[in-house]
Amino acid sequence: MLTASSRRATRCLGQTLRGVTTAATIFPNEPSVPTVNTFPGPKSKQELASLARVYDTTTAYFLTDYYQSVGNYIADVDGNKFLDVYSQIASIPLGYSNPKLAELARSPQMVNAIVNRPALGVFPSTDYYEILSQGLLSAAPPGMDQIWTTLSGSDANECAFKAAFMHQAARKRGDASFTAEELSSVMLNQTPGAPVSTILSFSKGFHGRLFGSLSTTRSKEIHKLDIPAFDWPVAPFPQLRYPLEEFISENRAEEQRCILELTQIFETYPKDIAAVIVEPIQAEGGDNHASAWFFQQVRTLTKKYNVLMIVDEVQTGLGTGKFWAHEHWNLDMPPDMVTFSKKVQAAGFFYSGKIGRTKEGYRQFNTWCGDPSKALLAKGIIEQIKDYDLLARAAVTGRNLYDSLAEISVRFPQVSNLRGKNRATFLAFDLPSGKERDAFLVKCRHAGVNAGGSGARAVRLRPGLWFEGKHAEVMLAVFEGVLKDMYK
Amino acid sequence: MLTASSRRATRCLGQTLRGVTTAATIFPNEPSVPTVNTFPGPKSKQELASLARVYDTTTAYFLTDYYQSVGNYIADVDGNKFLDVYSQIASIPLGYSNPKLAELARSPQMVNAIVNRPALGVFPSTDYYEILSQGLLSAAPPGMDQIWTTLSGSDANECAFKAAFMHQAARKRGDASFTAEELSSVMLNQTPGAPVSTILSFSKGFHGRLFGSLSTTRSKEIHKLDIPAFDWPVAPFPQLRYPLEEFISENRAEEQRCILELTQIFETYPKDIAAVIVEPIQAEGGDNHASAWFFQQVRTLTKKYNVLMIVDEVQTGLGTGKFWAHEHWNLDMPPDMVTFSKKVQAAGFFYSGKIGRTKEGYRQFNTWCGDPSKALLAKGIIEQIKDYDLLARAAVTGRNLYDSLAEISVRFPQVSNLRGKNRATFLAFDLPSGKERDAFLVKCRHAGVNAGGSGARAVRLRPGLWFEGKHAEVMLAVFEGVLKDMYK
Repeated sequence: MLTASSRRATRCLGQTLRGVTTAATIFPNEPSVPTVNTFPGPKSKQELASLARVYDTTTAYFLTDYYQSVGNYIADVDGNKFLDVYSQIASIPLGYSNPKLAELARSPQMVNAIVNRPALGVFPSTDYYEILSQGLLSAAPPGMDQIWTTLSGSDANECAFKAAFMHQAARKRGDASFTAEELSSVMLNQTPGAPVSTILSFSKGFHGRLFGSLSTTRSKEIHKLDIPAFDWPVAPFPQLRYPLEEFISENRAEEQRCILELTQIFETYPKDIAAVIVEPIQAEGGDNHASAWFFQQVRTLTKKYNVLMIVDEVQTGLGTGKFWAHEHWNLDMPPDMVTFSKKVQAAGFFYSGKIGRTKEGYRQFNTWCGDPSKALLAKGIIEQIKDYDLLARAAVTGRNLYDSLAEISVRFPQVSNLRGKNRATFLAFDLPSGKERDAFLVKCRHAGVNAGGSGARAVRLRPGLWFEGKHAEVMLAVFEGVLKDMYK
Repeated sequence: MLTASSRRATRCLGQTLRGVTTAATIFPNEPSVPTVNTFPGPKSKQELASLARVYDTTTAYFLTDYYQSVGNYIADVDGNKFLDVYSQIASIPLGYSNPKLAELARSPQMVNAIVNRPALGVFPSTDYYEILSQGLLSAAPPGMDQIWTTLSGSDANECAFKAAFMHQAARKRGDASFTAEELSSVMLNQTPGAPVSTILSFSKGFHGRLFGSLSTTRSKEIHKLDIPAFDWPVAPFPQLRYPLEEFISENRAEEQRCILELTQIFETYPKDIAAVIVEPIQAEGGDNHASAWFFQQVRTLTKKYNVLMIVDEVQTGLGTGKFWAHEHWNLDMPPDMVTFSKKVQAAGFFYSGKIGRTKEGYRQFNTWCGDPSKALLAKGIIEQIKDYDLLARAAVTGRNLYDSLAEISVRFPQVSNLRGKNRATFLAFDLPSGKERDAFLVKCRHAGVNAGGSGARAVRLRPGLWFEGKHAEVMLAVFEGVLKDMYK
């Protein structure tokens, strides 16, 4: 069932990893192949029904037994074990039941962080500087040395929006104080205290589901219906043809069109635009890519028009073979803020210089201002990534996996628009329709691989960082089997 | 230094607690009195300066050593130990370094919840039903058997808003599907897909700082300035005179005025109002109370006008001698949703019947849909509260403490508007000005008591549930000393 390329990948990784710690060392009890008996199994159905009495389970795939989930394998309550290349919607970075993280979870420092959860803005803890500087800040994007910690990706984006609004207002206000009119109008949610200012986002972008972040989310109708939204501008995101290297001139023309439209918006939009928010890869809205050139133009334009640039790395952070996907762009000037969350299981936003800091207190402030237990976990995750050079290794695994998928797409033309080359295992491909994509995912689950969808008809791969050639081999074999079943 | 009443309180509690586990049993190493040497101390200044290089510390009181904080005493990095009646902005429910919670934090179940953090909407865990039903749901408000778990008080409120908007839209839509116009307009943040609908809040209310919740927050200008807000309606919250029982007729007139204005808004406001959100005690905006009658009227009016009623118990939950402050109202019909967070160090919203459940999936959905590690901690907190009958005990402590503060206010007329009678230790009083209040809080800290402010000039007391007569005695002695220093 293996392709020539996946065999090559396995051999190549075997050489690369000789003498190196592998998933087998970290997870001695990781299964070598999936086991699927009855799926969905009777216990899963029954216990999901119990949970459904009190909690929304409409979207549940199966009731998951995390105690039996190890490394790259996720277990359900019926004893089925799936190779997981979805990783809790691109979140679990280092496999299930990672023993080093478990050790950290049992440590006195973690116990303290859990039991004595601080209101960090008022009573910051003695170890928070160390946790941040040795953890999240040690992986800060180039040009950024400040952090604000929050509780989710949505929350990180909204705090970045608030920082952008406050920064832009302070820039215009100069040394002046708030006016009496600002002070009175703001309590009624009216201008000038509550300004008519906006955040621009791109079509098909996803930035979260709280009221501000949802106003910038443009992925799917169902995410937004019936929820009031701010009347904020949207710009077109390039719709490129894949593989990118085969359609260079068409794609450049499409990106130029989008940059021209963005320029038009900056020139003519009747309201202030405080910031632009953009994902390096639109990772919910279809795994849509754009070139470094496109993002360089966005950076140049935002500088020109005094608009801040927020890069939403909530899903791409730690996932594309570098700490940050925007490092692939070789920007002359770093973005103004970078938000993230999933792969550190926490969220914060970095910013350079003073952009995110206000003169006055109690503005970005809230009760928690983050959570040390999550920042500590992030530190443990980042340390393990560095100790084992996992980003570089994911880059190699991803390169080989891309080649194998390319071979499959030759034999199965239904597998099209393969994308994510040189973005490690952050890969995706299309099937002919959403219905076929959904059927493919269900069949894969029955055959032992848990994968996810993105946008209208893409399959997205989001394995963790201990995903190696041998796991890729299992996944490719299952994919081939399902494709044969569907198309031959 | 003790008042007659506080002596009585101590005796009374001594009798009540004979043979009962006390704070001394749970926290054998809890200090008996505060120790303050140099404050702010040299280490606190120096290490806060380090943290300030990377993280906003503008609002920090002192660098806190949580490892040395025990029971009702919070320690700073210089070895000062303060009696803490602020509790991380009304959050730490069971004292610092609570040994039973530490045991829970080290348990295999907690380690699993931390290391294998699930995307609960897609891959709910085998133990989530048990964690919810034996924990948060076991303390559910009357008439409510459903829960949705979120990550903070703001987040809980915004999810409740979303549930309200979706419920109201579904009610109007009936069995019809989304229209083509709704599907296309929503992606541009335009009506009808993104409707012009609103949440009504009350003047001086505080409901959080994300974009939707901040639009309902009406506490202080600095919380809102420069941030765009939804144009949502605000109704007056009664401004009562205290003690409530001395101003019954004036207060009823004020509440009638507010109910009349609310009725006017329901009758004439030009946009849809999906829900009203209200705090049982406005716990940031000045510790403003209203009578059960007022809230009963709000419930009756919201029913009449088909507006949902959301009770924001983020700060009052578990704090007023009952699980929920709105249980003091004796409502005929429960509210539609109740939100909470602080004292369970997690957040969720309960709702009755089907109000918060949508037919379609992926609407309230987000990546995490809560956090089992927080829900598990909440379960441990609720169990300890029940095991030791801590709510009833806080009610007794609070009753005596109220009497002692009343005596103090006779001798120091600068201490006015004492409030919170029969709301356990959820007490507050005013000083003549914001400046004096702030000075009082600083002097208390120097004398070993850490308290907080609320609104323009109130001191708010938010001790934890292991705060007993002996702690009240220490606090009262410090208060008296500071008041003498300021006013005699």
